[in-house]
Amino acid sequence: MEQYVGFLAAILGTVCWVPQAWKAWATRDTSGLSLPSNLMFLMTVSLWLVYGLMVGDLPLILANVCGVLAVLSIVSAKLKFG
Amino acid sequence: MEQYVGFLAAILGTVCWVPQAWKAWATRDTSGLSLPSNLMFLMTVSLWLVYGLMVGDLPLILANVCGVLAVLSIVSAKLKFG
Repeated sequence: MEQYVGFLAAILGTVCWVPQAWKAWATRDTSGLSLPSNLMFLMTVSLWLVYGLMVGDLPLILANVCGVLAVLSIVSAKLKFG
Repeated sequence: MEQYVGFLAAILGTVCWVPQAWKAWATRDTSGLSLPSNLMFLMTVSLWLVYGLMVGDLPLILANVCGVLAVLSIVSAKLKFG
């Protein structure tokens, strides 16, 4: 049972930033996004990716590769549109 | 070494949404925030909290109580200011 909860959390945590990335690029409305928050979150998912690589956990690696890409896209939009 | 990376990721993942929550309430500029993303992320941290309670992992519980509060505050600002 615990595994399913953890698994669902991992999947949801991976896909949840796709709508935000989409919205940022589609509307260019990024003034309300906090750059410090998104940079720290980019660092967070990068660290989880490094951690996944260190312990050799494939689900963690895959989830955080997707996470890094989505958050990188949000940060790029924020830097571009202000 | 792995533990330190995981630990740093967990701490950063907890504090990183505080600036966003602060910004949302201070500026009321929430139009660029994606409601679906933030609702899914609220669900994500809630599930991690449930998972932490299920497996009895105190750091996971503490980190995600803070996470739920920060994200709940962002979602509330988004619902209030649009």
